[in-house]
Amino acid sequence: MSNQRADAVCCPTPPLLREPLSAPAAADMATKFKALADPVRLQLFSAVASHAGGEACVCDISAGVDVGQPTVSHHLKVLREAGLLTSERRGTWVYYAVVPAVLHALSSLLGAPHGAEAFVAADV
Amino acid sequence: MSNQRADAVCCPTPPLLREPLSAPAAADMATKFKALADPVRLQLFSAVASHAGGEACVCDISAGVDVGQPTVSHHLKVLREAGLLTSERRGTWVYYAVVPAVLHALSSLLGAPHGAEAFVAADV
Repeated sequence: MSNQRADAVCCPTPPLLREPLSAPAAADMATKFKALADPVRLQLFSAVASHAGGEACVCDISAGVDVGQPTVSHHLKVLREAGLLTSERRGTWVYYAVVPAVLHALSSLLGAPHGAEAFVAADV
Repeated sequence: MSNQRADAVCCPTPPLLREPLSAPAAADMATKFKALADPVRLQLFSAVASHAGGEACVCDISAGVDVGQPTVSHHLKVLREAGLLTSERRGTWVYYAVVPAVLHALSSLLGAPHGAEAFVAADV
């Protein structure tokens, strides 16, 4: 398979590589990157994203990290306020879920340049 | 074109959605997100990434942002120390270039879940 085909199907030039970001777009995206810029918060975000059904409560994910439940709750709140998670209370617990459109926006913003090793996996 | 085909060619499940990140991986990625978590720094990173030839010096990109050249230099240094840019001195100026593998790692980490609107553009 040629890179050209993968390029047509998969990966237009990411915005970050196409033109300088505007100040408002940069401010919006920087807020989201900031929410992911803490190791424990990034681990918790990953724990929610990879949990069965794409959602999780504090009770599901606290065991995987080395901080207490109040700290976990604080980090999840920061992620929600940055627009990376949604939350819904059901009974005793608040359940958090990822926002696919935001993940996609961040991923697309960064995407690797054409012809980079991004396509190696697709060629096997 | 079916989403199934796009999935096979383009987008395996991103690591962040597949399993919780390990602490070392989260620490490494969080450092890179932190470097992108400042609006001006993100604008400067985009200015380098989108500049002709994929590299730029302070002299090329200072005009696009509302901060002085020393601040621009500081931000570029932070991006370099986080592994997002490389630098090379040529004559009077230091030229900065993006590191495609790092961009790809961050993009792949976040990539949108299967079946999300990531595929809309590929279907036209």
